[in-house]
Amino acid sequence: MSPALLSSFATEIIIPVCAVIGIIFSLFQWVLVSKVKVTPDRNGPPANNNKNGYDDYLIEEEEGVNDHNIVIKCAEIQNAISEGATSFLVTEYQYVGIFMVVFAILIFVFLGSVEGFSTKSQQCTYDKFRMCKPAIATALFSTIAFLLGAITSIISGYLGMKIATYANARTTLEARKGVGKAFVTAFRSGAVMGFLLAANGLLVLYIAINLFKLYYGDDWEGLFEAITGYGLGGSSMALFGRVGGGIYTKAADVGADLVGKVERNIPEDDPRNPAVIADNVGDNVGDIAGMGSDLFGSYAESSCAALVVASISSFGIEHDFTAMCYPLLVSSIGILVCLITTLFATDFFEIKAVDEIQTTLKKQLIISTVLMTVGIAIVSFIALPTSFTIFNFGAQKVVHNWQLFLCVCVGLWAGLIIGFVTEYYTSNAYSPVQDVADSCRTGAATNVIFGLALGYKSVIIPIFAIAISIFVSFTFAAMYGIAVAALGMLSTIATGLAIDAYGPISDNAGGIAEMAGMSHRIRERTDALDAAGNTTAAIGKGFAIGSAALVSLALFGAFVSRAGIETVDVLTPKVFIGLIVGAMLPYWFSAMTMKSVGSAALKMVEEVRRQFNTIPGLMEGLAKPDYATCVKISTDASLREMIPPGALVMLTPLIVGTFFGVETLSGVLAGALVSGVQVAISASNTGGAWDNAKKYIEAGASEHARTLGPKGSEPHKAAVIGDTIGDPLKDTSGPSLNILIKLMAVESLVFAPFFAAHGGLLFKL
Amino acid sequence: MSPALLSSFATEIIIPVCAVIGIIFSLFQWVLVSKVKVTPDRNGPPANNNKNGYDDYLIEEEEGVNDHNIVIKCAEIQNAISEGATSFLVTEYQYVGIFMVVFAILIFVFLGSVEGFSTKSQQCTYDKFRMCKPAIATALFSTIAFLLGAITSIISGYLGMKIATYANARTTLEARKGVGKAFVTAFRSGAVMGFLLAANGLLVLYIAINLFKLYYGDDWEGLFEAITGYGLGGSSMALFGRVGGGIYTKAADVGADLVGKVERNIPEDDPRNPAVIADNVGDNVGDIAGMGSDLFGSYAESSCAALVVASISSFGIEHDFTAMCYPLLVSSIGILVCLITTLFATDFFEIKAVDEIQTTLKKQLIISTVLMTVGIAIVSFIALPTSFTIFNFGAQKVVHNWQLFLCVCVGLWAGLIIGFVTEYYTSNAYSPVQDVADSCRTGAATNVIFGLALGYKSVIIPIFAIAISIFVSFTFAAMYGIAVAALGMLSTIATGLAIDAYGPISDNAGGIAEMAGMSHRIRERTDALDAAGNTTAAIGKGFAIGSAALVSLALFGAFVSRAGIETVDVLTPKVFIGLIVGAMLPYWFSAMTMKSVGSAALKMVEEVRRQFNTIPGLMEGLAKPDYATCVKISTDASLREMIPPGALVMLTPLIVGTFFGVETLSGVLAGALVSGVQVAISASNTGGAWDNAKKYIEAGASEHARTLGPKGSEPHKAAVIGDTIGDPLKDTSGPSLNILIKLMAVESLVFAPFFAAHGGLLFKL
Repeated sequence: MSPALLSSFATEIIIPVCAVIGIIFSLFQWVLVSKVKVTPDRNGPPANNNKNGYDDYLIEEEEGVNDHNIVIKCAEIQNAISEGATSFLVTEYQYVGIFMVVFAILIFVFLGSVEGFSTKSQQCTYDKFRMCKPAIATALFSTIAFLLGAITSIISGYLGMKIATYANARTTLEARKGVGKAFVTAFRSGAVMGFLLAANGLLVLYIAINLFKLYYGDDWEGLFEAITGYGLGGSSMALFGRVGGGIYTKAADVGADLVGKVERNIPEDDPRNPAVIADNVGDNVGDIAGMGSDLFGSYAESSCAALVVASISSFGIEHDFTAMCYPLLVSSIGILVCLITTLFATDFFEIKAVDEIQTTLKKQLIISTVLMTVGIAIVSFIALPTSFTIFNFGAQKVVHNWQLFLCVCVGLWAGLIIGFVTEYYTSNAYSPVQDVADSCRTGAATNVIFGLALGYKSVIIPIFAIAISIFVSFTFAAMYGIAVAALGMLSTIATGLAIDAYGPISDNAGGIAEMAGMSHRIRERTDALDAAGNTTAAIGKGFAIGSAALVSLALFGAFVSRAGIETVDVLTPKVFIGLIVGAMLPYWFSAMTMKSVGSAALKMVEEVRRQFNTIPGLMEGLAKPDYATCVKISTDASLREMIPPGALVMLTPLIVGTFFGVETLSGVLAGALVSGVQVAISASNTGGAWDNAKKYIEAGASEHARTLGPKGSEPHKAAVIGDTIGDPLKDTSGPSLNILIKLMAVESLVFAPFFAAHGGLLFKL
Repeated sequence: MSPALLSSFATEIIIPVCAVIGIIFSLFQWVLVSKVKVTPDRNGPPANNNKNGYDDYLIEEEEGVNDHNIVIKCAEIQNAISEGATSFLVTEYQYVGIFMVVFAILIFVFLGSVEGFSTKSQQCTYDKFRMCKPAIATALFSTIAFLLGAITSIISGYLGMKIATYANARTTLEARKGVGKAFVTAFRSGAVMGFLLAANGLLVLYIAINLFKLYYGDDWEGLFEAITGYGLGGSSMALFGRVGGGIYTKAADVGADLVGKVERNIPEDDPRNPAVIADNVGDNVGDIAGMGSDLFGSYAESSCAALVVASISSFGIEHDFTAMCYPLLVSSIGILVCLITTLFATDFFEIKAVDEIQTTLKKQLIISTVLMTVGIAIVSFIALPTSFTIFNFGAQKVVHNWQLFLCVCVGLWAGLIIGFVTEYYTSNAYSPVQDVADSCRTGAATNVIFGLALGYKSVIIPIFAIAISIFVSFTFAAMYGIAVAALGMLSTIATGLAIDAYGPISDNAGGIAEMAGMSHRIRERTDALDAAGNTTAAIGKGFAIGSAALVSLALFGAFVSRAGIETVDVLTPKVFIGLIVGAMLPYWFSAMTMKSVGSAALKMVEEVRRQFNTIPGLMEGLAKPDYATCVKISTDASLREMIPPGALVMLTPLIVGTFFGVETLSGVLAGALVSGVQVAISASNTGGAWDNAKKYIEAGASEHARTLGPKGSEPHKAAVIGDTIGDPLKDTSGPSLNILIKLMAVESLVFAPFFAAHGGLLFKL
């Protein structure tokens, strides 16, 4: 075992420096976005402000740039959306804050009780010849890490929402100058969120490790066990963010569509629709804040899973700090790679036409993946010894640095494949979505049948991609391999999030254009941005699910090691019942969230109908609707309805572990993982396909599409029904399932010392 | 270990006698049904023919009993349906026959090659100190058993269809005399099928065992290994029956509804609809022949699984014939119990009003379960030694007879619970379906969202019931316990099938009434029969899925034992990738079948539209539609489309076992099992709920229901869309998934000797 080329000192510098670079880059993008003014410019447009690296020829046709009223209107709408989103998130965080405190106490009590709150040093779990810090220290530091993770997650979501609601009207206003300008504004804003989140997550984790080390010293086993609380904190906030935000956005969306589009035949985002502000707020709290928290959670968990396994491998045993920090170094390089990648979209190339948007976004994925492959190679060869050992369920397995390089790469590239397959099944440029659109000819029923079939089918290749990644990384480096494969998939998270956040920002921009009464031309431009965003949103969900699968397997492996289970044998009754019940949980969870969206949407429909019926002049645009009541319905519904599914996910591991023990819990985790992945992928792709099938008919870009349209035709009505059904599938229940599988795994890992010591009460009796 | 009370000789007599009693009872019921004449009675109705144990007061109002034209019309329609069904099944069996021959050769070659086609005796697999028959003998007898199982399955399906198409018009004609008469006719016909199938399956299996024993002698290990081919044969035919029949019936149904009900606004089963005959044929080939083959397969497989485990337990080692035949004895008693139960419906009690139908059918389930509990107790205490040992993955586990009694009972009662939960979620007498109906107020989209949520939710309790059965029976008696629990659930199969077959017969009866132009009163009576049948069909599917889960776990356990795997550890890469890919298979399979139904339905829609547009006078009822073309479309589509999903199921175990080996195959089986059960239950309950939500609105029996109706209202249209979407879910993809999970398991078991010897090529390289 030769030592790594990179010294500990260099590692200590590189990681925070990369994180800070990420934060600075993010702030720089913000400054660029902020140059777009949403206050009327009394002097007219600036003379020649070649500011975004674009020449004037890109500015296809400036339209209404001097119309002060429009700017004021946009600013007003933006304010309304921003206020709605802020007030919702603040209320949500108050609820969640109570949960956080309660759960923090729970963690401390459960973990502290492992050794009866003794403050004496104890024998280490893995290295029986050494003494480790007492269990109560782990309890305390796990609790602190949990709170740190939770707060970082909240900040990530909140900042993301702030930036998105800061950028949406700016994108609309830039759309007056051309699609290229608008694209750059939306994309830069996405990048602000992506980089801030990636860099923040890395920096906080790095600082926490260094602070915890002050106490733990050489007891890395205890140190990194406590650090896993960070992942739990991140993911439990993500759960509420996703579920609460998901219910909020879809209750508003479904409610707005059912009355507005279907009954009243008014366009989407029409300002006469009372639910329109709630709908736009929803995009920001669900797709932005929820998604941000979700991916932050995945990132935190995969880092923690890798670190905890490394701490009991040769890296940890020999106190090789550089190798130990390999997961963080991969993420650090990822920030630099994504920084370069972003420049390809914003500065190196220029978007001249609408159909280039999709290509540019796709290129982002490819460029970041290719560059990252090189980055991973560099990190793997300078930060790792040529060979080392990795903990593998009780034994130590010899691994070479090139094998670990392959583990990370296989995750990275599997992510790309999942992304492309998702695109194939959800973009209306390809035959699957076109077939679904075609089936609208015979009505909504065939549309739904074809859409469901499409979703089921879209599971096949991603599952093979995940299976191959698992097989390769598992074979090379056991659970550590899986954890770094997950990190590989998430290493380009800054770019992934930028692309992802770009979608809802464009969606909002379109909404603002419609509400501000801007011309059809502008709306066409924002629609084009939005259509590309729809597909990228589906790709983002694909990444989120794929990485969640890998992360939870890695966490599951770490849990099994920590709980001291020898094998998880399916053919023992305890494990098998766990497996089948675990496989059921995604259904239970989906039933709850779908029903919540349905019920909240019904309430929204009633309110919107009531307003249309009782407010005179509303349909004629003479009176203003009461937006606030709709916002309140969404807020109340989501806060009330997020509790039962949240409780299901948070309590299941605690109940199963405490009463049925670690074997059954292992079964539950494995079952939920293998079943949840399928439900999540099929739900989000089915929903994405329906959405784009509808857009395909509306856009009428091909001969075939025109035979189905136009808006208001029977096939279009059938497509709208499909789209509405898909809303909760793709934006509430589907993506929340990622968190279900990850969160149960990380929670089990954090509570593993307790379950191992006191779990399985029912079988002990 | 004291010997069993029942002597071998008594066992040898009891089993065939019970089977023969079942067959005689079945024929007796047939004779009773045949007394209803479908040829016009020149002398008017018989004076007082108190023949079915009913008094005249039951005959509410005789209507049109003397109308010869109606009788002739009914006979014509019955002939058309019967001919269509027969011709389809004959064509299907020709296709399947080719497959059967090819697969038989495959079995022989694969299993023969295990010992290189040597004809020398070999060391036994489990008892290393004894010599067993050569592998080529197992190959030959497995092949024979496979063919026997396949032929029995075909006969079961075919006879079921024949009886159903014999009884449908008779039920219609009896409906003229009152709902009680019609119910008895339909139920008796169902019983013919139920008893014939149960008794036939038992008898053929029993004869096969005795014939095989002539060659195998004391080598019970080899004997019962070869017998498992019977289960494989039964289930592989069931696969094609379910998938082919399912596509047939739903293509016709969806096609007929989309044009007839939605576009042309004509009632269901209207004779003007060109697809109406195909639709009625479909009920018989899908719901009757397919269901019959399916449950026969479950029955054959659970018997085989129990026998193969018993053969390597103390029963087999000590050649205790009575105890060895315990599974067959349970089934024998089951036939007697069901016989008594049937009399409760047909003779002991009388149906006086429409709302008693549902209660009577439910009572059948309860009575048979209670009586069977007693029956199982008797068999367990007279046929089993007080204690014995059961093979448990390499070890022998001591089991007491009362423990085995509990294993069978837990399966039996879990079946009842699953049945009742299914009823709760699919009957429109309870709030879940009423909520779904209510959501139709806001359109098809909310209907679909609520329906999907209902299906997901309905999974929870059945899964807990299955999990508890598994835990109890697994803990008491390892894999043997699971197998007998499955048998327990299926022990009342004759009653279950009678109830189940009753549904499509009533459905057809209603169709015939409509087509023959009978009065609204008659149609109301058949509708009432049909509505009860809808729920019982869902209950039947619940049983089929529950038993399939238990059966495949038992087969899986037997496979693992036979393949010589020590543990199926989820945390090995080979097993885990199997698990996640296995969990994906139900989605792949469903995607295929759903899409097949969708495409075939689209073709049907085009043809039906074409006929309405081109045949003058069709809408006015002046011209006859071209039924034959629609029948041909369904036939062609189902035969063509059943091949890819069939190939997926049949080839997966062969490919995985041969190339990836037994560990990965174990993972695939476990994954497919735990994921498939959820998809199957949720799909059939969602479909059932939508169907009954529609019926709820149509019937308008409550204040609430009337606010949603009447037929043709907006909520009703939304409900029809849900019903149409549910068709392929509940009748094609959902129930086929049972067979997917069972068939892959039994196929793996049959090929286990080959996989153990030569499997895993890819990892060997």
